[in-house]
Amino acid sequence: MYTLYSMQRSGNCYKVRLALAQLRIPCNLIEVDILKGESRTPDFLAKNPNGRVPLLEVAPGRYLPESNAILWYIAWSTPLVPDDPIDRAEALQWMFFEQHSLEPNIGAAWFWLTLVKGGRELQSHAFEGWMEHGYGALSVMEKHLETHRYFVADRYTIADIALYAYTHVAHECDYDLTSFPAVRAWLKRVAAEPGYVRMDYREQEPAIAE
Amino acid sequence: MYTLYSMQRSGNCYKVRLALAQLRIPCNLIEVDILKGESRTPDFLAKNPNGRVPLLEVAPGRYLPESNAILWYIAWSTPLVPDDPIDRAEALQWMFFEQHSLEPNIGAAWFWLTLVKGGRELQSHAFEGWMEHGYGALSVMEKHLETHRYFVADRYTIADIALYAYTHVAHECDYDLTSFPAVRAWLKRVAAEPGYVRMDYREQEPAIAE
Repeated sequence: MYTLYSMQRSGNCYKVRLALAQLRIPCNLIEVDILKGESRTPDFLAKNPNGRVPLLEVAPGRYLPESNAILWYIAWSTPLVPDDPIDRAEALQWMFFEQHSLEPNIGAAWFWLTLVKGGRELQSHAFEGWMEHGYGALSVMEKHLETHRYFVADRYTIADIALYAYTHVAHECDYDLTSFPAVRAWLKRVAAEPGYVRMDYREQEPAIAE
Repeated sequence: MYTLYSMQRSGNCYKVRLALAQLRIPCNLIEVDILKGESRTPDFLAKNPNGRVPLLEVAPGRYLPESNAILWYIAWSTPLVPDDPIDRAEALQWMFFEQHSLEPNIGAAWFWLTLVKGGRELQSHAFEGWMEHGYGALSVMEKHLETHRYFVADRYTIADIALYAYTHVAHECDYDLTSFPAVRAWLKRVAAEPGYVRMDYREQEPAIAE
């Protein structure tokens, strides 16, 4: 069974948890609280020198970081990865877009505004840039979704999962999606996919005290 | 034959041109000067709404953006993409790392310091962050290369191509690689790979006037 090192409120970790749930792949989940420095301990850095979650143990002692690489790995040969080579490349295209245009902006805003106490003040110098570039990414997505139900191959794939993770919480960190109706409709479609779980879903429910 | 929209001095474009050269894939190259706004014309935006190069026409009228997605597409089923599923995922891992940790810092510094006249002054507020985070990415690479000759599967792959593009020009935009000996040795190994072409190599040499 896979072991996934993950933080519950991280969008990057949610991508992997959502895909695992939809693919019905069981997983041993280990919560890593990056706010408490748990991803910077010597033990964790030995597993991932980049000190980040999610991190998937894909074989005994072999650890795969990077949420979108993990998505690709676990979903390969499933309907979540397109069969056609061009479609597959387009899935990667949107996942790279997510990592350089969406996550560094909306993901950063989410982290500092909702997870870190006092984060808004600490990062006030960066906020304007996150807003401008985050809206830029949303505009590219809106334009695509005006004529497509999903990002690739006319169906739900790992590209949608990757883009959904931070887009679906954008309104919680000051982004106004009013002028992005196609994005909002797509968010609803994703949330209606079979096996969908919410970001606050816990794979391992705490045992009920007797 | 593929058509590649590319700018000669862009590291992201160089990745694709290097892989095409090494795979001996012929290509119709169209130079797009982003400094002159040529990636923001209505004609170009119709091909890529994100307004960026490189852009590969993979089928008539079908355009694939994102340098690393293009690398994956053109190198699939060649020795530049590993066969083993975990190795393949690790290649993607390093390519995602490149796009969120290396390219936004060293790539940005390269663009503003070497390509844009007066760029250093225009972007003085961002320079410190690019340096700090660029060195952070180089440190992660150095640590890996201390015990590996290449990034994945013990041989030259698209992960090396992706990481090489901006790392090999880092010294031209103020990064000092003195304390990164493993990175410098790896840069030399990449430049010695069969079919290697330099960034300033021109696929289509201008015809010599008679």
